[in-house]
Amino acid sequence: MDKIFLHEVGMRDGLQVEQQIVPTEKKIEWIKELMQTGVDIIQIGSFVHPVKVPTMADTDELFRYFSKPENKKSDTVLSGLVLNEKGLDRGMDAGVEMFCMGVSASETHSKKNTGMTTDEALDRIIPMAKNALSAGKQVQVSVQSAFGCGFEGAIAKERVIYIVEKYLQNGILNISLADTAGHANPIQVEDMITSIYSINPEAKLSCHFHDTYGMGIANCFMAYKHGVKYFESAFAGLGGCPFTAKASGNVCTEDLVNMFNKFGLRKDIDLKKILEIAKEAEEFFARELPSKVLKVGILEH
Amino acid sequence: MDKIFLHEVGMRDGLQVEQQIVPTEKKIEWIKELMQTGVDIIQIGSFVHPVKVPTMADTDELFRYFSKPENKKSDTVLSGLVLNEKGLDRGMDAGVEMFCMGVSASETHSKKNTGMTTDEALDRIIPMAKNALSAGKQVQVSVQSAFGCGFEGAIAKERVIYIVEKYLQNGILNISLADTAGHANPIQVEDMITSIYSINPEAKLSCHFHDTYGMGIANCFMAYKHGVKYFESAFAGLGGCPFTAKASGNVCTEDLVNMFNKFGLRKDIDLKKILEIAKEAEEFFARELPSKVLKVGILEH
Repeated sequence: MDKIFLHEVGMRDGLQVEQQIVPTEKKIEWIKELMQTGVDIIQIGSFVHPVKVPTMADTDELFRYFSKPENKKSDTVLSGLVLNEKGLDRGMDAGVEMFCMGVSASETHSKKNTGMTTDEALDRIIPMAKNALSAGKQVQVSVQSAFGCGFEGAIAKERVIYIVEKYLQNGILNISLADTAGHANPIQVEDMITSIYSINPEAKLSCHFHDTYGMGIANCFMAYKHGVKYFESAFAGLGGCPFTAKASGNVCTEDLVNMFNKFGLRKDIDLKKILEIAKEAEEFFARELPSKVLKVGILEH
Repeated sequence: MDKIFLHEVGMRDGLQVEQQIVPTEKKIEWIKELMQTGVDIIQIGSFVHPVKVPTMADTDELFRYFSKPENKKSDTVLSGLVLNEKGLDRGMDAGVEMFCMGVSASETHSKKNTGMTTDEALDRIIPMAKNALSAGKQVQVSVQSAFGCGFEGAIAKERVIYIVEKYLQNGILNISLADTAGHANPIQVEDMITSIYSINPEAKLSCHFHDTYGMGIANCFMAYKHGVKYFESAFAGLGGCPFTAKASGNVCTEDLVNMFNKFGLRKDIDLKKILEIAKEAEEFFARELPSKVLKVGILEH
């Protein structure tokens, strides 16, 4: 069986939506612990406006800290999300190893989020991605709202494929399909992944699912079954907003690793260590988080 | 697409493990509401010793109540679990429409639960099932611990197939594969279902999964994908024991129905009504239950 790769996004997609700001020292502690688990990539922040998103205000500082060799002993790749050229510049300065950036397949979502149409956003994101690649950085581009949109509802598969092809035509192979609204279902995932691979077998697809309707793990499984090798998930299942009705977070890293372990995959990852960090997150936020394996423990048989 | 069928087991597998006994009047209310949702079969109790399992002590009374035509307006099938001949007799007297009974694929589980080996248990269960069939009753037989055992760990697929074949040889076609310990993973489910159907395409398989490790919906999906048409689930995701570490319950009915709805299946089922009952259960037990759709609501797009 082929190796799969884990991109831990809890520090960004998880902490970003929390009301309670995690102090920089605590973030550094969690990132160091996450690096010890053996996950492949850790997304540690987003280069957004610090006043608009105070939970991400220390992103530059975190990257600067981990740019010092004495602070980063592992070969884990540290990724950061950038939304525009200014964010890219900040990320370059701060020492980002992998840049993540994307456009939305939903025109409404794109316009509300960026003021641009999907095509206008592509015209800005693709040069940014190329610049980062030219600078020797790893780059992952994404298709947001790839499986549905909170504003528009269903999103045509062709729109997702259109964006994927634009990326590939520009030599950007690392492409993440993000289920931003959490609408994906496993038949849709199967259809999307097989369609993309039949058109473009060279894409290095990543999947980013939320467990909003309880199908997160099923969606990951179907993506895996059809050849996806990169998965984005959050320790403890962070990413749900405790103050809105939409309470479900990212697919939970430990539940995902536990499933892959059952398939004989990624047994090198320290699942116990991930559970310890998840437990710390529950204690920090003083509420139960959606992780299943955290509740019942690892099955040792 | 073929129709799938839902067997709601929350009133039995869910309430059975709760410390707080649901009064008979409340059970009647919930069962009546569940009948209005359009689920196909409702398991309303277990014919166990009333002192040993006080939560199920009113099982005879419930069946007697619903045997009266004025109390049951729908054609929902009411099922009851029986463990032995005495339970079967009680169930016959009380008016059970579908008898559920089974043996464990794990010798250790079988001996601990019944004092019998799997073969000894089969020698008792098969005549019971035939008697119930002869009496014009619907019968569903099960293979417990079909995907793993809390005592033994892994269970060989051949043991499950051996029991399935015994049932089929005796003309009992309705067979439920029960993941009693919650160990199943979707690759294992795929392998089990395709193996059974390749040997015995005439089996009417049902799947009963718990969401212990977050793979419940993924397991249901793979079972569905390989031809399983009957699914057992519990409203609100009941079935987890709040007083032990093993907190996860049955696959949640509303999450399962919501997924099937996305495939265009069972849109006749009143999902809103199921959510109302799930909400009542949360209020009754005064704790958050694992249902996802209950948290975020139905996606109306």
